[in-house]
Amino acid sequence: MKILLVGALGTVGSAVAAELGRRHEIISAGRQRADLSLDLGDRASIQAALDTLGSVDAIVSAAGQVGWAPLLEMTPEQWAYTTANKLMGQVNLALLGQAHLRDGGSITLTSGILTHQPVAYGAGASLANGGIEAFVRAAAVELPRGIRINAVSPGVLAESMDDLAPFFRGFQPVPGARVALGYARSVEGGETGKVYEVY
Amino acid sequence: MKILLVGALGTVGSAVAAELGRRHEIISAGRQRADLSLDLGDRASIQAALDTLGSVDAIVSAAGQVGWAPLLEMTPEQWAYTTANKLMGQVNLALLGQAHLRDGGSITLTSGILTHQPVAYGAGASLANGGIEAFVRAAAVELPRGIRINAVSPGVLAESMDDLAPFFRGFQPVPGARVALGYARSVEGGETGKVYEVY
Repeated sequence: MKILLVGALGTVGSAVAAELGRRHEIISAGRQRADLSLDLGDRASIQAALDTLGSVDAIVSAAGQVGWAPLLEMTPEQWAYTTANKLMGQVNLALLGQAHLRDGGSITLTSGILTHQPVAYGAGASLANGGIEAFVRAAAVELPRGIRINAVSPGVLAESMDDLAPFFRGFQPVPGARVALGYARSVEGGETGKVYEVY
Repeated sequence: MKILLVGALGTVGSAVAAELGRRHEIISAGRQRADLSLDLGDRASIQAALDTLGSVDAIVSAAGQVGWAPLLEMTPEQWAYTTANKLMGQVNLALLGQAHLRDGGSITLTSGILTHQPVAYGAGASLANGGIEAFVRAAAVELPRGIRINAVSPGVLAESMDDLAPFFRGFQPVPGARVALGYARSVEGGETGKVYEVY
């Protein structure tokens, strides 16, 4: 398969690239050092990247920034950044990207454990994740041409614990290689409208 | 209790006003015919309404418009309307409103069955609902002064079936009076971070 992977340089994305890259051709997209330049927060840049892409079998997003602050200190700008990036950025990627998928292709987005298991500072991430999961279930009933859509909801990554441990006390870290299996399930399986929780 | 009710004229809101109004003082807020003028999609208008409000025991949102269209026909404007109203409008109401709550007060937002049970045309509603539910769980772990926050997730209302039946074939309609009990659970109960599903 030919797979567009957005956010291939991130902690999740590099694990996904390692897993799927064994069997498939990966075209990376991101803000830097990628085959295609793409800023998920900018709809026009998504469209521009897709226009140079041609047709692929799968689109995977392992990207999506959010505001991260104490609940009552989140600014309107941080909320706008959250909704423009991890939430609507991924929605725009799916809706613009589906036109570039072959019949029966798939879209895989990223949510995260904070949908259901919140932490302090994480209200923006929770909101974006919950929105993405519900969007995926809804989009699955309307996408044309047998196109599938799922989300992967990773726990906190073992590789991120140097930075994130103070925010995720008591959470079981998950190795990136195990999280990457969720993406393989979505891309190489046959389900649609699912959220693969890899906690 | 003194309760601010946003969207008191809507199908859900009028049922909530009937239920809670038996035992409590209701201050209505909305775009028209309300005690306080408030447009949920306009953060400044929320702040202005709250500034004239003083202090209350509970804030209830039974409001929140969304874009409603076939998935691939939703315009960027409809997505922006969705996120500005039902999603971030309710988030802004909660975050600005908490400062106007007495210690131990409560916030109740509205999501809906489309979080988990999608229908065609409903991807915007699903996204907003899923975001609200995850936000409520997250905000519950950070709100100060014993302030609680919950969501009510109504099924399709019996009173709305004249308009909505073609979109909700096979769904069991729920009388508004029963949906209103979910709001009573949230306001008059003791839980926080919950989603009361009234399907």
